[in-house]
Amino acid sequence: MHKLVLIRHGQSEWNLSNRFTGWTDVDLTAQGVNEAIAGAKLLLEEGFTFDLAYTSYLKRAVRTLWLVQEEMDLFWIPVFKTWRLNERHYGALQGLNKTETAAKYGDDQVFVWRRSFDTPPPALEQDDERHPANEPRYASLSSEELPVCESLKMTIDRTMPYWFQTMEPAIRSGKRVLIVAHGNSLRGLVKYLDGMNDEDITKLNIPTGLPLVYDLDADLKAIRRYYLGDQEAAAKAAEAVANQAKGG
Amino acid sequence: MHKLVLIRHGQSEWNLSNRFTGWTDVDLTAQGVNEAIAGAKLLLEEGFTFDLAYTSYLKRAVRTLWLVQEEMDLFWIPVFKTWRLNERHYGALQGLNKTETAAKYGDDQVFVWRRSFDTPPPALEQDDERHPANEPRYASLSSEELPVCESLKMTIDRTMPYWFQTMEPAIRSGKRVLIVAHGNSLRGLVKYLDGMNDEDITKLNIPTGLPLVYDLDADLKAIRRYYLGDQEAAAKAAEAVANQAKGG
Repeated sequence: MHKLVLIRHGQSEWNLSNRFTGWTDVDLTAQGVNEAIAGAKLLLEEGFTFDLAYTSYLKRAVRTLWLVQEEMDLFWIPVFKTWRLNERHYGALQGLNKTETAAKYGDDQVFVWRRSFDTPPPALEQDDERHPANEPRYASLSSEELPVCESLKMTIDRTMPYWFQTMEPAIRSGKRVLIVAHGNSLRGLVKYLDGMNDEDITKLNIPTGLPLVYDLDADLKAIRRYYLGDQEAAAKAAEAVANQAKGG
Repeated sequence: MHKLVLIRHGQSEWNLSNRFTGWTDVDLTAQGVNEAIAGAKLLLEEGFTFDLAYTSYLKRAVRTLWLVQEEMDLFWIPVFKTWRLNERHYGALQGLNKTETAAKYGDDQVFVWRRSFDTPPPALEQDDERHPANEPRYASLSSEELPVCESLKMTIDRTMPYWFQTMEPAIRSGKRVLIVAHGNSLRGLVKYLDGMNDEDITKLNIPTGLPLVYDLDADLKAIRRYYLGDQEAAAKAAEAVANQAKGG
């Protein structure tokens, strides 16, 4: 049997200022830092350790992982970063205030962009300074790979190849794996592992900083999944994420 | 032409308490943290950036690298960790106070252990709790690879395969590489790049936290090497390291 742990990064600066973030590389807030440390303490209390970790190219995830490594005294473990674990690319909405966007386009339109499975937000223009082609970290991506906006479906479609090609073989070989990523890239993994349908995954809210543990059988089928720590607190944290979505 | 940057980790807790450290996994002091940040600021001022970084399995080097990544906003770059960049293994001396060791074995003996090229310190016994076989991070090493004590020569002999197999090809392919490591593993790289003899390398003292830059030609031959920042300060820092050695 294998264990796999997923952690969604803690609160970021733009969670706090209520802006669409996507691939914008904002840092954690002080609360986000505390969430990461609290998550690591839960892992320590339950006797977890890791052989390697995966994260995204975005600092709010990298820093969350570093804080977990520090707290667990696992500075030395190999860490692999990939754009495929990045948050959903929010296209031309990146940087806009969520309330102002709702006032401009209407609540219904914004709700569709935010919560539908396969409707992407408006795309970035090629000459937009926010275009990912302007960033050295994405220089190795082909123009077909480089997103200018993503629906949840598109996010999942570019996340999962990394699961099948890299993470799944590592777990199968006996490595104890930690994945620190974002709400929507983690949804892809959860949808696959839990066999959820397109609609249900749009309603799933993963709380920030709380370790989500999967017990997997020898074929890597999920036997059980659970959040570490106080289950009531986990349920409340998920609800808070859902309410934030409704309010946006 | 290529540029390569080496950084020796900042002051560690056992530098401060004057103990033989080797593979003991002690953290940076507050001064060590400041040295790392100061080094990163010099790199930024001179317009450096990096495509990837290498470091050891020891947290004083990993944390130094993290501080540089944070200061330079390079959270996302790939980082490869290897035991081959670890500090020299100090065998049975690890954890002992340098002054007490000199009182016990005599200054001359300790001087030979510390400053000769090819005399290793006393080896760890197999059942010593400090033996690296007790640590999960070294589980993939064969018993031939796993050191129980190392001379400078032995340190260099296990560092350089990583240069030839991994770091040199990356630089040759055009990657801008940062290496954050330890006094003795860095000596191996400097000895090779500068073509120094066995005696001269024992006298070379690399200051902590100061970026050491190599300009390399297309064949990766060193054209020039220099420390960033105030050259007088660099000379003084190197001298301070040398005096610490004499005093030990």
